[in-house]
Amino acid sequence: MRILVINPNTSADMTEDIYQSAVAAKQSATKVKVTNPLHGPECVEGMADELMAAYHLLDIIREAESTDHFDAYIVACFGDPGVDALRELTDKPVVGVAEAAIRLSSFISGKFSIVSILPRCLIHLEDLVRRYGGEKRLASIKTPNIGVLDFHKDAESAKQKLLSAADEAVREDFAEAVILGCAGMSGFADLVAGEIGVPVIDSVTAAVKVAESLVDMRLKTSKRNTYAPPTGKKYK
Amino acid sequence: MRILVINPNTSADMTEDIYQSAVAAKQSATKVKVTNPLHGPECVEGMADELMAAYHLLDIIREAESTDHFDAYIVACFGDPGVDALRELTDKPVVGVAEAAIRLSSFISGKFSIVSILPRCLIHLEDLVRRYGGEKRLASIKTPNIGVLDFHKDAESAKQKLLSAADEAVREDFAEAVILGCAGMSGFADLVAGEIGVPVIDSVTAAVKVAESLVDMRLKTSKRNTYAPPTGKKYK
Amino acid sequence: MRILVINPNTSADMTEDIYQSAVAAKQSATKVKVTNPLHGPECVEGMADELMAAYHLLDIIREAESTDHFDAYIVACFGDPGVDALRELTDKPVVGVAEAAIRLSSFISGKFSIVSILPRCLIHLEDLVRRYGGEKRLASIKTPNIGVLDFHKDAESAKQKLLSAADEAVREDFAEAVILGCAGMSGFADLVAGEIGVPVIDSVTAAVKVAESLVDMRLKTSKRNTYAPPTGKKYK
Amino acid sequence: MRILVINPNTSADMTEDIYQSAVAAKQSATKVKVTNPLHGPECVEGMADELMAAYHLLDIIREAESTDHFDAYIVACFGDPGVDALRELTDKPVVGVAEAAIRLSSFISGKFSIVSILPRCLIHLEDLVRRYGGEKRLASIKTPNIGVLDFHKDAESAKQKLLSAADEAVREDFAEAVILGCAGMSGFADLVAGEIGVPVIDSVTAAVKVAESLVDMRLKTSKRNTYAPPTGKKYK
Amino acid sequence: MRILVINPNTSADMTEDIYQSAVAAKQSATKVKVTNPLHGPECVEGMADELMAAYHLLDIIREAESTDHFDAYIVACFGDPGVDALRELTDKPVVGVAEAAIRLSSFISGKFSIVSILPRCLIHLEDLVRRYGGEKRLASIKTPNIGVLDFHKDAESAKQKLLSAADEAVREDFAEAVILGCAGMSGFADLVAGEIGVPVIDSVTAAVKVAESLVDMRLKTSKRNTYAPPTGKKYK
Amino acid sequence: MRILVINPNTSADMTEDIYQSAVAAKQSATKVKVTNPLHGPECVEGMADELMAAYHLLDIIREAESTDHFDAYIVACFGDPGVDALRELTDKPVVGVAEAAIRLSSFISGKFSIVSILPRCLIHLEDLVRRYGGEKRLASIKTPNIGVLDFHKDAESAKQKLLSAADEAVREDFAEAVILGCAGMSGFADLVAGEIGVPVIDSVTAAVKVAESLVDMRLKTSKRNTYAPPTGKKYK
Repeated sequence: MRILVINPNTSADMTEDIYQSAVAAKQSATKVKVTNPLHGPECVEGMADELMAAYHLLDIIREAESTDHFDAYIVACFGDPGVDALRELTDKPVVGVAEAAIRLSSFISGKFSIVSILPRCLIHLEDLVRRYGGEKRLASIKTPNIGVLDFHKDAESAKQKLLSAADEAVREDFAEAVILGCAGMSGFADLVAGEIGVPVIDSVTAAVKVAESLVDMRLKTSKRNTYAPPTGKKYK
Repeated sequence: MRILVINPNTSADMTEDIYQSAVAAKQSATKVKVTNPLHGPECVEGMADELMAAYHLLDIIREAESTDHFDAYIVACFGDPGVDALRELTDKPVVGVAEAAIRLSSFISGKFSIVSILPRCLIHLEDLVRRYGGEKRLASIKTPNIGVLDFHKDAESAKQKLLSAADEAVREDFAEAVILGCAGMSGFADLVAGEIGVPVIDSVTAAVKVAESLVDMRLKTSKRNTYAPPTGKKYK
Repeated sequence: MRILVINPNTSADMTEDIYQSAVAAKQSATKVKVTNPLHGPECVEGMADELMAAYHLLDIIREAESTDHFDAYIVACFGDPGVDALRELTDKPVVGVAEAAIRLSSFISGKFSIVSILPRCLIHLEDLVRRYGGEKRLASIKTPNIGVLDFHKDAESAKQKLLSAADEAVREDFAEAVILGCAGMSGFADLVAGEIGVPVIDSVTAAVKVAESLVDMRLKTSKRNTYAPPTGKKYK
Repeated sequence: MRILVINPNTSADMTEDIYQSAVAAKQSATKVKVTNPLHGPECVEGMADELMAAYHLLDIIREAESTDHFDAYIVACFGDPGVDALRELTDKPVVGVAEAAIRLSSFISGKFSIVSILPRCLIHLEDLVRRYGGEKRLASIKTPNIGVLDFHKDAESAKQKLLSAADEAVREDFAEAVILGCAGMSGFADLVAGEIGVPVIDSVTAAVKVAESLVDMRLKTSKRNTYAPPTGKKYK
Repeated sequence: MRILVINPNTSADMTEDIYQSAVAAKQSATKVKVTNPLHGPECVEGMADELMAAYHLLDIIREAESTDHFDAYIVACFGDPGVDALRELTDKPVVGVAEAAIRLSSFISGKFSIVSILPRCLIHLEDLVRRYGGEKRLASIKTPNIGVLDFHKDAESAKQKLLSAADEAVREDFAEAVILGCAGMSGFADLVAGEIGVPVIDSVTAAVKVAESLVDMRLKTSKRNTYAPPTGKKYK
Repeated sequence: MRILVINPNTSADMTEDIYQSAVAAKQSATKVKVTNPLHGPECVEGMADELMAAYHLLDIIREAESTDHFDAYIVACFGDPGVDALRELTDKPVVGVAEAAIRLSSFISGKFSIVSILPRCLIHLEDLVRRYGGEKRLASIKTPNIGVLDFHKDAESAKQKLLSAADEAVREDFAEAVILGCAGMSGFADLVAGEIGVPVIDSVTAAVKVAESLVDMRLKTSKRNTYAPPTGKKYK
């Protein structure tokens, strides 16, 4: 099985981190390729960033579909940018990391918190949780003012903020599991879990497992209505 | 007051229709300019189309902000593509036509239906209605298989489908008002209202009135959290 | 265009304040008349007050319909008393100030708070927000123990409570905009906005803009089902 | 125990019907008195009617509180007009018949339908069901075009419409119990139950049992916040 | 009327307490019998306990149905274990104490809190409240770390925790009534009410009143669909 | 990896069918063992059945935990009986087949339908869908009067009912994927998919993939609060 994991931003450092998380729990026979667009923001910290990043994914999928053979695609940014659009362009499963993490969390915990990045993302994350049906089990969304790239710029401080927010989620908000709400936090799941004593879910790892599951079940994206290929039209 | 109404698709015919609706109910002193991107799909009939269309709006807003002076922007496609992203790029109000129509409909009716285009858009429209808090008053969403450009290609047939769906909404679904769920239907509000005997809301017209209202109230987009300007970062 | 703004309570001072807010952002050609019932409570601070106030609006509308020519009516009390009933008595739009403020707030902010008056109103306001579809974007409802008439009796203290609650909403509850949840607060929007740095929405002003919008769009209250004229019957 | 059952409309015939339902299942020691206002509509078939009817209940309660000794009050119109307001004027339980019927129905059925009167009441009933937390178990609301007084004017036709709607609720909408959604239907519960083979709930009877329950439990309306007595003020 | 109140756990002390609450507000002619299973946990403090306790209720109901004549059954554990299953085995009303307390609370208060036992029960209680349609009026669920049997082991400390949590619910969470969320708290309603000044609802007492109400109304469990008798099959 | 798949009913035929589905898409190295309780109903077609079946799972898990080494458990009945209780007894993931199917379906379709067995299960399935956050994407629940064992007693007729209901879900209810809502339907996924042209999800297969995913991610059930081991107490 071949899975293409796409980092929607243009930071090669993050692409490498994402690769590490993507292979952390994969089946041995699964081949994971990681890529990122040539153009767009180096990190996604808002909705304009997300729109730019999502746009460039269209070409990546189109090219992958025509030249390569992948069994599934993963969009590795915790906002699932462009996922709905991409599902129209292929019948291979397209998995967003947020959806994967949120849906898997409920199998092993009563309530979960998401520790994410900036307060400006709060509403977007609330909308995602509602969209994925997680609102009844949401303990809290923490946005401890971490920038996406802080883990490369000022790792120690970012780690402390992450740990402190995760700990608060467990102690004050009744979280029984914590989801790392940024692909840039990939690789810190074990560290955080060790400190706070509840399961910690890395979203990239979760998405790889969901993608493998769908492929093993031979499930493809339904082409009836919502995710049918785009209708014929002119593009300028 | 100067309002820029942006048709997110590249069909000049639709841009002209949208202009007619935009000026239909404006204050006499309001100046409306209509534009559309140079690039992108000629119509928006799905989520890949929407993503492409939304992307090109970023440049339109950026340019408008730097060279021109508008008091508000309207995105004239009944899916409100890119509206959240655009709100980060300006403090002038950015109004989506779907939000305007859905929110205004409840002041004059108990239940409303949306008559839109294709079954593939159903879920996207349901999500929009929920996002704008209209789900408790939604009578139905009708998707009578009308293409966005059908009003220019096969106007008579499109009109019959539209009338028939609107009529069904009123007679069978308890709709007390009908929203035209596609900017391409602009200009048919009076015709439909005449046939079905309940108020019919043109979304472009609604958006102009909301934009004027916000400007007259001197309300600008809040720059705290959600719609703050994009954080500093590199773009490739 | 002629709009009748009705202060549902019998305080002439508040009627005058409401007039100031009503004209603050109106179109120049709009004529605003303000009135209040001869009978009923001098302020509305609970549901018995609201019922009494609402009852007397019926006669005001009936008389206005038969003797005068208005294009729209506004009920200027942040609980929208009687609005549903009044809509049965006329086909002119009837706009409640709470609905107008809540619906407009979402065009310019991600989350909003309402700063209102007394803790006893909390549930009523929560019900209103849900009715108008605002619950997903509600940051908080603050009820800092201000009486409706305090702005005339002890203005300085009332103002301080209002400012302090609004500030708390922004700093602690993630509000990105604040709605003044009492017609008695009309006139303080600019002051509060200046202090807290986010948009502040005066509900009376918002209602005037919504009423103008509906009139300009030639939308009247749907007479199908919910707001049909009362059925024929005897009244004792 | 003494319970005052108030028919909010001015039809003496209905008041008598309501009395029959009120005593149908009461404890032997309970004394039921029935009354109706002197003024207001002879039936309640919309929101203007409801507002008028509710207003006159204020005086009934005030007088009953000062001159008489009742242990509980019942508002016997399936829209629960004025109940919230009345709860401010007394610490005796005030029970609306709709709330009583909706809340009791779930103890003996999985899904319930309400058979009520006119399509114009649909939204109001949906709002009531949501307010009382019944939406997840609602099978349907039927409004088979029965006028409130039809049971006295054209009883046979009204009965047929009622039976036919109830039967449809069970066969097509998966109703497992049926609530009679109008106090004017009081007295038909046994007839309908005999025809459709599922439990049928008379709302007036239900309200008497809830009132007795609260009184026996010595529960009074909480005077903290929502239902505290009206604040001091002038009334004109 | 004869009501069988079943304490689902095997603690005879609690069965006795439950009896006291069951008879506290019953009609004089109602005969209450209390029982508990021979097998199962001595208290129910989680979902495995609840499953075990619920299982043994099946035999109690089956035996009661075949040998005795009861008019209604009550399951006296604030999680309503097995209630849905038991409703299939009899057409007599089966009332859970949590459902009774939650549904009755809204007739006398705007917002309610539940004071229950352990944090591990939080989600289960949230699910119950949602199931019974109480979520819009829920102020808070308090779980002050009281074990079910603590009222017999360390009564003073348990009482203090209960009082302190109830007081916090009123002062900080806007509760206007408090439900005692454990049958083991039966008997403390008056004490708590005296301290906190708002109505306090004992769930066992509430369930008796609901059961009496249903029996007086001659309402039996609907046998259509959800609660039909079990289909024919082999049991090993 | 070793997974124990438990058929909660006592039908050996169904246990064998379940085994076939369990191994259909498993990783090659995963060892699947299937079992069923010695006692309990031969099929689960209601809530009393479900309670009995669930009870006997407690012993299966307890024994498996003490004598054997499994990495995860699956409860293979589309009602997820006992899953919450079992999660308290082990820290290995316990996966219900309904939860697995419902959560995975949304990665590959916009709207899903569940085709299940009997109308009596409708409400229970609606509650499950809501619990797992699927309500916004639910197209319909079909209950075409198929008994759990009909696939062994009258396979042809059962198959026809299944196909016809699935087809109706797609054509009339806008389903884009169909979940087989009974473990007894295991093995018909390919047949149904071939007929209706949209993805069909076998719940047992889905649960195996979710269990493998959680084990590969080294995620165990959180022992904080909800799923902590039962508190110490006496059992009789």
